[in-house]
Amino acid sequence: MVKLICRVLGLSVCAALGYAETPPLMPWPASAQFPAGELEITAGFSISAAGAGAADPRVKAAVARTYARLARQTGMPIQPRLVATPNVAALRVIVELADHRPPQQPGDNERYALDIAEGGARLSADRPLGVLRGLETFLQLVHQTPASSAGTMSGFSVPFAEIRDEPRFPWRGLSLDVSRHFIPVDGIKRTIDGLAAVKLNVLHWHLSDDQGFRVESKLYPRLQQYGSDGLFYTQTEIRDVVAYARDRGIRIVPEFDVPGHASSWLPGYPSLGSRPGPFQLVRTTGDPAGVLDPTKESTYRFLTAFFGEMVRLFPDPYFHIGGDEVNPREWNNEPRIRAFMHSHRLADAKQLQAYFNRRLEKILAQYGKHMVGWDEILQPDLSKTVMIQSWRGQKSLAEAAREGYKGVLSAGYYLDLMQPASQHYAVDPLKGDTANLTPEETKLILGGEAAMWEELATAETLDAKLWPRLAAIAERFWSPDSVTDRASMYGRLAATSRWLEWLGLTHRSNLDLIRRRLAGSLPVAPLAAFAELLEPVKGYERHRAGWGASTAFNRLVDAIPPESDAAREFNDAVDRYLAAPNPAAADSLRKQLAAWIQTAAAVRPLLEGNSLLSEDLPIADAVTALARAGTDALASRSVSAPPDWKAHAQSTIKDASAHRASLLVAIAPAIQKLVEAAPN
Amino acid sequence: MVKLICRVLGLSVCAALGYAETPPLMPWPASAQFPAGELEITAGFSISAAGAGAADPRVKAAVARTYARLARQTGMPIQPRLVATPNVAALRVIVELADHRPPQQPGDNERYALDIAEGGARLSADRPLGVLRGLETFLQLVHQTPASSAGTMSGFSVPFAEIRDEPRFPWRGLSLDVSRHFIPVDGIKRTIDGLAAVKLNVLHWHLSDDQGFRVESKLYPRLQQYGSDGLFYTQTEIRDVVAYARDRGIRIVPEFDVPGHASSWLPGYPSLGSRPGPFQLVRTTGDPAGVLDPTKESTYRFLTAFFGEMVRLFPDPYFHIGGDEVNPREWNNEPRIRAFMHSHRLADAKQLQAYFNRRLEKILAQYGKHMVGWDEILQPDLSKTVMIQSWRGQKSLAEAAREGYKGVLSAGYYLDLMQPASQHYAVDPLKGDTANLTPEETKLILGGEAAMWEELATAETLDAKLWPRLAAIAERFWSPDSVTDRASMYGRLAATSRWLEWLGLTHRSNLDLIRRRLAGSLPVAPLAAFAELLEPVKGYERHRAGWGASTAFNRLVDAIPPESDAAREFNDAVDRYLAAPNPAAADSLRKQLAAWIQTAAAVRPLLEGNSLLSEDLPIADAVTALARAGTDALASRSVSAPPDWKAHAQSTIKDASAHRASLLVAIAPAIQKLVEAAPN
Repeated sequence: MVKLICRVLGLSVCAALGYAETPPLMPWPASAQFPAGELEITAGFSISAAGAGAADPRVKAAVARTYARLARQTGMPIQPRLVATPNVAALRVIVELADHRPPQQPGDNERYALDIAEGGARLSADRPLGVLRGLETFLQLVHQTPASSAGTMSGFSVPFAEIRDEPRFPWRGLSLDVSRHFIPVDGIKRTIDGLAAVKLNVLHWHLSDDQGFRVESKLYPRLQQYGSDGLFYTQTEIRDVVAYARDRGIRIVPEFDVPGHASSWLPGYPSLGSRPGPFQLVRTTGDPAGVLDPTKESTYRFLTAFFGEMVRLFPDPYFHIGGDEVNPREWNNEPRIRAFMHSHRLADAKQLQAYFNRRLEKILAQYGKHMVGWDEILQPDLSKTVMIQSWRGQKSLAEAAREGYKGVLSAGYYLDLMQPASQHYAVDPLKGDTANLTPEETKLILGGEAAMWEELATAETLDAKLWPRLAAIAERFWSPDSVTDRASMYGRLAATSRWLEWLGLTHRSNLDLIRRRLAGSLPVAPLAAFAELLEPVKGYERHRAGWGASTAFNRLVDAIPPESDAAREFNDAVDRYLAAPNPAAADSLRKQLAAWIQTAAAVRPLLEGNSLLSEDLPIADAVTALARAGTDALASRSVSAPPDWKAHAQSTIKDASAHRASLLVAIAPAIQKLVEAAPN
Repeated sequence: MVKLICRVLGLSVCAALGYAETPPLMPWPASAQFPAGELEITAGFSISAAGAGAADPRVKAAVARTYARLARQTGMPIQPRLVATPNVAALRVIVELADHRPPQQPGDNERYALDIAEGGARLSADRPLGVLRGLETFLQLVHQTPASSAGTMSGFSVPFAEIRDEPRFPWRGLSLDVSRHFIPVDGIKRTIDGLAAVKLNVLHWHLSDDQGFRVESKLYPRLQQYGSDGLFYTQTEIRDVVAYARDRGIRIVPEFDVPGHASSWLPGYPSLGSRPGPFQLVRTTGDPAGVLDPTKESTYRFLTAFFGEMVRLFPDPYFHIGGDEVNPREWNNEPRIRAFMHSHRLADAKQLQAYFNRRLEKILAQYGKHMVGWDEILQPDLSKTVMIQSWRGQKSLAEAAREGYKGVLSAGYYLDLMQPASQHYAVDPLKGDTANLTPEETKLILGGEAAMWEELATAETLDAKLWPRLAAIAERFWSPDSVTDRASMYGRLAATSRWLEWLGLTHRSNLDLIRRRLAGSLPVAPLAAFAELLEPVKGYERHRAGWGASTAFNRLVDAIPPESDAAREFNDAVDRYLAAPNPAAADSLRKQLAAWIQTAAAVRPLLEGNSLLSEDLPIADAVTALARAGTDALASRSVSAPPDWKAHAQSTIKDASAHRASLLVAIAPAIQKLVEAAPN
């Protein structure tokens, strides 16, 4: 029973029940038990592979990577054994069957079992893909040998384990915009490493949008030449990335967003546009109006040829055509297009887009591709092979499923909005409007995709916008729907964030570098401590302040993670205190607040006279004022406070909660609770 | 006059003289003045190039890199302008002449002038190589705009400057062993980036040694197959690295160490050995005995063919044959070899090696290569085209020069010995025995090479063993011999260390990762604070404890830099205090010691029960004891201390100075000074 509870709730409960430390696996497996004991990792660690799938290139590459990653995670000189004998190998991999025929499909078998016991570990899987997933689990289990396990010498081990695992959803992805800010190939590969590590399996590559066209076309080279700032992927690079992803069990679904979000196509090929040209690439904020002309046959000839070129680069059976946010005026204002709508009995722009989509669907079907699009493409008469990606919510997903369309959920998983991991974690593709679907309809909900739009993110900050929050979303898509404990999630997420460093992700290190850059020649520690109390403003507020190709993303708001751990922990401590006030807890809160007053004082010399940081001086003042208000609130319970202290504190909180320099003081809500709950 | 002093002494003096902040250039230029003023770096920053050398591929590549590096150093979206017009460009590059004919030679013109003033910067150079050096200087000057410079908005600028610069020595290198531990290509490239950044110009690649043969030979593939653990550079990789280095103005001088240090040649080709085979690759400590047989013609046929293959990979005019540490017994014990010596009138092993070297020198001359070797090759009858690399000291260098041989100094620059930067900085190729050479002989001293042997370093820790100390050695080789101020060097070295991070060097970040790995799931901060007080044992002590291919380098000693900044700063503070004791200084020292007692207490929970860290528990005790002894010494001046306090303190220091876990408590010498100087 204990083991059953551990399986679902993980870390905190198991620790309370006397299990030394539940491994910080993320996503949590379908079933996991951890009998007492540790298997030591030594420099002579070796991996053998057997079974019909053992010679598969993906298995071989994954085993080779596992040696290298074990070496990084332990600092031991672990190297591939040229011949690993099954009887001696520390990890025996058994793959029952050869790989599915490529390309990888949603629903390809990812199941595995991992048994770690005295004498060795055994990873068995039906297919090579399961081996890839299981090896990630094994690597997440590697830790410093607990003090309680005597007799190990190397310092590193994996706990004994009995794990049976497979995903809840077959489509678990990240949609990544590389148009607004370009992400070089090394960033894409690093992201793929991260996706594989948390058992996601789709990189949905948003390759074109208004502000940039990012793929080399040889047929239509003016697409990238006139439609980008010179930063795009060559076809060689695309092939390299697709192969890299396949090696790691990640599908690459390309998106070319049409007919809207297509401004970047028009400088090179103005005749595609609804309006007459010429057009210039606009790399700034706002909603550029470039929309393709769906009335000309030449548009379809162009797309037929262009898609024909692209399907040779992208082997995935799915092909994303965007389809979102078409501005109807772009069509309605053109007499030529209105005449076409009239003669084709298309009542409005929506119907015209449906016509366009049906044409595209047929083109892609010729190439053997399933068309994917955002919610808006859901219009009558579309083939049932089309898939819907919902950015609007479970409602449109449910509607699509009722009409027989497959779908994935992205609403609720927009990482660019700077929301906490817990908020995304609480969103479930099968809760809300999708909860009441029939079993047959439910099967059409293939999973979900986190989305990262790059208006405010750059290659430098991308990792910090994705990680570790994306791991929590990955758990939502992989783990049983009963895995929902917020405290367990945050505990494992912190460990996952540390662990991801061994993959080379830069979500922590790059923020540190940016803070050092801000600090200039002064010590960075006071800035780092101050930054821990802050969060970026949420939602689209900062977008509205404007952005563009010449905007520098090098301010304090760019040097912090989306979520303040310190503020969350303080908030939890305040909740516990208010539920059961006691002097020890009050004292602990008071000390924390006093430390923050010090933090705000210590950072001032760094902020003053620094042209990038001086905008943050009022925030240091706000931290001080909030910490004092919290201190007053705690004092009010024991000491008689001045009659107007609370009004003063409330005014302080209001003022301190103003958004400055695109930053929030993340401790403000908890202080407000303290003040509200205090006696007058 | 002030400017003249600044030029020589840099930071500290200039600051005292009222110059806001002397730029932390390293190496310090031959001549530099900094008039008041700043040139802003904006997102629209552009670089133009003009002159006969402007179209040179090295210039073009360096300009492209400069854009990318400016973007990293500022966080601004600085991108290459497709057309940079000279009149508008923020940095105008003028290259008078086309490039020297490749390959790069020692003595190729590296001179440049950099003028930064109102309206823009101008970098002029005779040759492309000077542009490369000057761009590094420009990038080192980029900083946060000082508060005193109003009117700049972007936050980053370069100070106005008038710099005239050229190197003191034409040969400024790093000798890097990749045999004992292999360094993958990305590590080599990172190292080359670092060399170029501090204006070094030679990577001497020690490609073979007893424990590993690291180059793919297609003629003799058993060299790498039987002579390595599978880790070696393919010929494609070698070509890639050579081109990468050339792009950055770095020569690659390959070394194949013969006839000693050649054990790794013999498993694949036993007939090359002096002893009868068979041989097995031994990847452990000690002095493997494999020596080539210099008596067989087949040895020379092999080397002729092998060198012929290698000279096609390495275009540099110099080719290093090692030649060090031949064990004479390996030859003297073989009757066949003794007979050869007798018949050829070679009195001893030394003469036999001289015979071997003369044969090699002829082979290499056929290929148009100058032979380089360690001191030992200096024997009668060698061609004067041969160059000597001295690992023994200035004496052998001076002897070589008197006999007409060129030479470079490596003695005093062994980075693997974990000595402080100041110790290497004080060594000068033209001081000591070389000081009294004639001007003609002096010209034969081409410069120096730092050396990094890899017995105890791995790909993970390499950067931390090289940097930032290598920058101080680079300054010794580049800057005028009058640039010797230790305080200025350390001030600029700290800034250089931060700055090198923007190149992607991992000397700080990887140590942080290793400490996090050691800390496991506990917060790393207490371990980091504790580690600041420690240094690795110096010299060969740790080597003697044994090492090999299966040794893990993942202990605390592997997670710290060679030199403790905190200990050095404390030592300087103690020196100042003892020179002029006063209550404020005493109080400051006392507070520091009290903080360290806290540090030692705070780290204990991390060390206890941690199988990798528990060996460091006595060191935490030693820190506590030393801090108490220092506190007693300070107290003894004002309070009457117990009669035996000093004897007790001295005994504490002696005990605390014991070497444990290959670590030293770096604050011990300063504490000892405090105690010795205190009244009884």
